[in-house]
Amino acid sequence: MRRISLLGPGTFSEESALHFLGEQPHELVPFKLISEVFQAVVSGRADLAVIPIENTLEGSVSQHLDWLVHEVDLPIQAEWVYPITMNLLGPARPLEGGAQEREARLARVRKVLSHPVALGQCRQFLRTRLPQAEVEPVGTTAEGARQVRERSGEEGLAAIGSRSAAKLYGLELLAEHIEDHPDNATRFVLVGPQPLSLRGTGRPKTSLLITLPADFPGALHQVLSAFARGQVNLVRIESRPTRKKLGNYFFFIDVEAPLSSEPMPAVLAEIESLGCSVRVLGSYLSHGV
Amino acid sequence: MRRISLLGPGTFSEESALHFLGEQPHELVPFKLISEVFQAVVSGRADLAVIPIENTLEGSVSQHLDWLVHEVDLPIQAEWVYPITMNLLGPARPLEGGAQEREARLARVRKVLSHPVALGQCRQFLRTRLPQAEVEPVGTTAEGARQVRERSGEEGLAAIGSRSAAKLYGLELLAEHIEDHPDNATRFVLVGPQPLSLRGTGRPKTSLLITLPADFPGALHQVLSAFARGQVNLVRIESRPTRKKLGNYFFFIDVEAPLSSEPMPAVLAEIESLGCSVRVLGSYLSHGV
Repeated sequence: MRRISLLGPGTFSEESALHFLGEQPHELVPFKLISEVFQAVVSGRADLAVIPIENTLEGSVSQHLDWLVHEVDLPIQAEWVYPITMNLLGPARPLEGGAQEREARLARVRKVLSHPVALGQCRQFLRTRLPQAEVEPVGTTAEGARQVRERSGEEGLAAIGSRSAAKLYGLELLAEHIEDHPDNATRFVLVGPQPLSLRGTGRPKTSLLITLPADFPGALHQVLSAFARGQVNLVRIESRPTRKKLGNYFFFIDVEAPLSSEPMPAVLAEIESLGCSVRVLGSYLSHGV
Repeated sequence: MRRISLLGPGTFSEESALHFLGEQPHELVPFKLISEVFQAVVSGRADLAVIPIENTLEGSVSQHLDWLVHEVDLPIQAEWVYPITMNLLGPARPLEGGAQEREARLARVRKVLSHPVALGQCRQFLRTRLPQAEVEPVGTTAEGARQVRERSGEEGLAAIGSRSAAKLYGLELLAEHIEDHPDNATRFVLVGPQPLSLRGTGRPKTSLLITLPADFPGALHQVLSAFARGQVNLVRIESRPTRKKLGNYFFFIDVEAPLSSEPMPAVLAEIESLGCSVRVLGSYLSHGV
């Protein structure tokens, strides 16, 4: 049975992990901070870690990437992209009057607790359906849900968060899918020393960290030529300063190709021959819902 | 006098704005959510908005970029890069015993409140100097400082945050520069309809949003060729899916060149002739400390 560290409980990390792990026996090991999530794998308390890596509510993308690159040397074993659905959560009371009672309960909400980014993603809903409510930013969406349960003496509290937070804290869904843009999704990677198979079929993907010898536009241009000639499809590119020398950059490049089969070995050899250093962050399957 | 909306009070947005505005007369208009910061400029309550855009503790980079691109059409008028220095803040009491008393006060800290990313950035300090303390993630670094003042009945509370939060809430710096990596900096942009000059000299920079017609590696490769031939120095490139059509991407590209002088007009004309659409997000001066 695999032990999997993640931010939690009640987070989107957890909700999405439960989806992709499916029937597979596992133990989730929740932590409050991403540093603890990584550290659990380094120290052997967990076998794999779930790290939100793009469009994330649960921490900073750049901090998570920095950890992956500078602090730990754990390969990416899998990836999933999970739609982030926001819900308004309130104290559980039997809803008997149907839609009308639901409206009445919305009208009694005085304060909405959530992560600042989640509050921002539900702006339309807050403005049109809860114009009377003020917002209270808290550290995580799950923390907002926890406080709604804990501060049960206060009237009119609600949280914005995941279904998994509602379940964890015994809250009710007062409204579902309240996010402004329904196409919101977060990318998570699973990192650790051993591979793990996820539910469903995935597409092969390789994540690379390429450091240029110098001269950004010229060298990057040659790197991309190598991928173009090999007909390797790039799906992400992002530059970051190396912090070692001013004007030195590395690139996160994701390609839709497995590392070990042609044309990738030849393409990477060509890129190295340009004087670039290539570090493979992982070659894995990417899963969607 | 310019009215400037930003996340605040007590944030790094505010601390850095005060630095770069210098002696210039201004009014800071603080909001809790980034959507409100943008909205203030759209509605005319403020003239310019301060938006953290890279390596940010104050919200999600991708959400801020999405706002800039999809929701509002406000040009970037200036940029600053500000070093993020973390401090341990505690209730103000006269420190008379010097270093020894400072140590004794650190030993009495039982709980440290801050934004989860800030807690992660001070991991070494927390582990070695405050091994007895637990962490409590809150919505913002300023909120942690506010709670340390408000929950004055609780013994052993401290926050991690900015000097500006310490000042705002009358707290004391128990320890300074406690971040694991001293080279941590956040990039902020100032957006709004009118330009504003900042303190110090800046370097010319232009931010572009380039949408490729199709076929990522091939087209991007030609775009970079155009910059390389014009000897225009790229300092950032980041791909993002357009969300309109699968496999369609746009790129955030920052170059160190003003928009209106050669070679930029010719380079952009060449890129447009490839079938790419080019949107100028701003041409401005970039300032460092």
